[in-house]
Amino acid sequence: MKTVLSLDAMGGDNAPHAVLQGADLYLKKNPKVFFRIFGDKAILDVLIKNYESLKKNSEVIHSNFIITSDMKPSLALRNGRLSSMGMAISDVAVGNSKAVISAGNTGAYMALSKIVLKSFDCIDRPAIPAFIPSIKGQTLLLDLGANIECSPENLVQFAVMGSSYCKHLQNVENPSVGILNVGSEESKGNAVVREAFNLLKTMNNINFYGFVEGDNITQGPVDVVVTDGFSGNVALKAMEGVAKLFSQTLKDGMNSSFINKIGYLFSKSAFDYVRKKADPRLYNGAMFLGLKNIAIKSHGSADHIGFANALSVAIQLIEKNILTDLEKNLLEVA
Amino acid sequence: MKTVLSLDAMGGDNAPHAVLQGADLYLKKNPKVFFRIFGDKAILDVLIKNYESLKKNSEVIHSNFIITSDMKPSLALRNGRLSSMGMAISDVAVGNSKAVISAGNTGAYMALSKIVLKSFDCIDRPAIPAFIPSIKGQTLLLDLGANIECSPENLVQFAVMGSSYCKHLQNVENPSVGILNVGSEESKGNAVVREAFNLLKTMNNINFYGFVEGDNITQGPVDVVVTDGFSGNVALKAMEGVAKLFSQTLKDGMNSSFINKIGYLFSKSAFDYVRKKADPRLYNGAMFLGLKNIAIKSHGSADHIGFANALSVAIQLIEKNILTDLEKNLLEVA
Repeated sequence: MKTVLSLDAMGGDNAPHAVLQGADLYLKKNPKVFFRIFGDKAILDVLIKNYESLKKNSEVIHSNFIITSDMKPSLALRNGRLSSMGMAISDVAVGNSKAVISAGNTGAYMALSKIVLKSFDCIDRPAIPAFIPSIKGQTLLLDLGANIECSPENLVQFAVMGSSYCKHLQNVENPSVGILNVGSEESKGNAVVREAFNLLKTMNNINFYGFVEGDNITQGPVDVVVTDGFSGNVALKAMEGVAKLFSQTLKDGMNSSFINKIGYLFSKSAFDYVRKKADPRLYNGAMFLGLKNIAIKSHGSADHIGFANALSVAIQLIEKNILTDLEKNLLEVA
Repeated sequence: MKTVLSLDAMGGDNAPHAVLQGADLYLKKNPKVFFRIFGDKAILDVLIKNYESLKKNSEVIHSNFIITSDMKPSLALRNGRLSSMGMAISDVAVGNSKAVISAGNTGAYMALSKIVLKSFDCIDRPAIPAFIPSIKGQTLLLDLGANIECSPENLVQFAVMGSSYCKHLQNVENPSVGILNVGSEESKGNAVVREAFNLLKTMNNINFYGFVEGDNITQGPVDVVVTDGFSGNVALKAMEGVAKLFSQTLKDGMNSSFINKIGYLFSKSAFDYVRKKADPRLYNGAMFLGLKNIAIKSHGSADHIGFANALSVAIQLIEKNILTDLEKNLLEVA
């Protein structure tokens, strides 16, 4: 039997092309998937003819309303149920598909998902996680901005959910978890992180490491770093800025002389190695952690390769039954 | 007349060598400085013979007590007055020297400076600033960890002090200032940053830009980014981690084949360009902003070149009368 996924074809900077091409690409790797694609049928039916595999393994369901990237979540909530995004989300709620994937407006997607798919009882706002390249492979960082202010209990929930998410996607048996802080000693930080520390160190089902600092996100030693959405968002974007600065500066240096340009040609495979290690497309696709169903956010700027990666994340989480695991683990800390 | 600086010769990973060699190096650039050097006289008198310029332009004052890098600030406060660090700080308070420079224990240095040198009335804990390499040159980021929890008024003080600090060290006439947040819209973030936004937008003496995000630290458009010590510390260390990851990965790639090694030789000047742009020694030396005297923190791992840079920061701030400027500007927001 095929696994059914619902796609918001109209969300993201490269929609609908990246969505359709990404789905077609994914089918070449895994033909046991069927897509229910929501969006403007007149446009999609024409485009889909170009994709042999997708044409045979999909159904287009019409919606003529699109949630734009700058629409406020409150407006999306009032009017968004019949948008391509809203209909794709509802498709999971009524049981037609196992997961929804959208590259559209994050705030609107989160708000609609929360109302339509519901979150677990103890979860206020679902957390957004992301894998970050690190010296030892990848580190999971959460929350990335959904929960600006957090209680110690929120951080404990992030630890529980992040641990389960990391285990299923990275095949790490018992992921180590750290709380982001300004120092590693127990006395450091504010009351929220210190109380979360005290709660986590008594829990048997979490492999708790203790406090970690900002550089530990990329330098190890933990698998999962939990923090509130403010610091998580600041850290993520600060790191993206440095990666961009590094590439730009190196490019300037490489273009500064003829000798350097020759050097670049010789070193090309080394640069490709770095580029591949940091390629955001391979890290694309994050589950809203805390919802009772699987909703995956693809980055708004993702191309077809990035979108295909988000589909692969969805399938892995379905196959590994992450929802059962999350519900069980959250009950233990509720 | 020579400008007198007091040095804690015993603080930092490379003390006392980096301190003495750095001071000697700085004298070659600027002979109009005299150093009062605090530390173990038996050791320092022997070492100082190796430095021709320094020998002639310094005086060693004995202290046989050293504040170690892991000493708690509270213990340093009780017992640290007669340490090399404590005596160097007091030397400024009694008017023997114009500024103190130490590469020792940051917490102890901050605590002792606050007690001995006093902070301006409205300042609770002095803020620690740092210049970060950016696409347009440098961005000043503060606070980097002294003030874990901040009020909107604290952030306004950081904006005022950061603006003045940036003006004097970067020769920017009217530096633009942004508040670090998770988005650029006025509605984003927590109550503290939103209230600081409202306060700053009404101030005529601050060139207020609005909210900025983490990547703006290295990507522009502002000269100064203000944030609480928690987020500032997280952002700084997260950025350091990525810079390290980038260098390591590129090195691995360059060593992966013979062809790449040849490429490296051709590209060497390009790498040197990047290394120079990001060389932390050129950014070393940060004033504790909010004290009534000039106390400069050199990074604990700074070598002599880094330490000489911290001395240059001290001299620039003295010559440009930063204290008068800070006092005047802080009075306006008190």
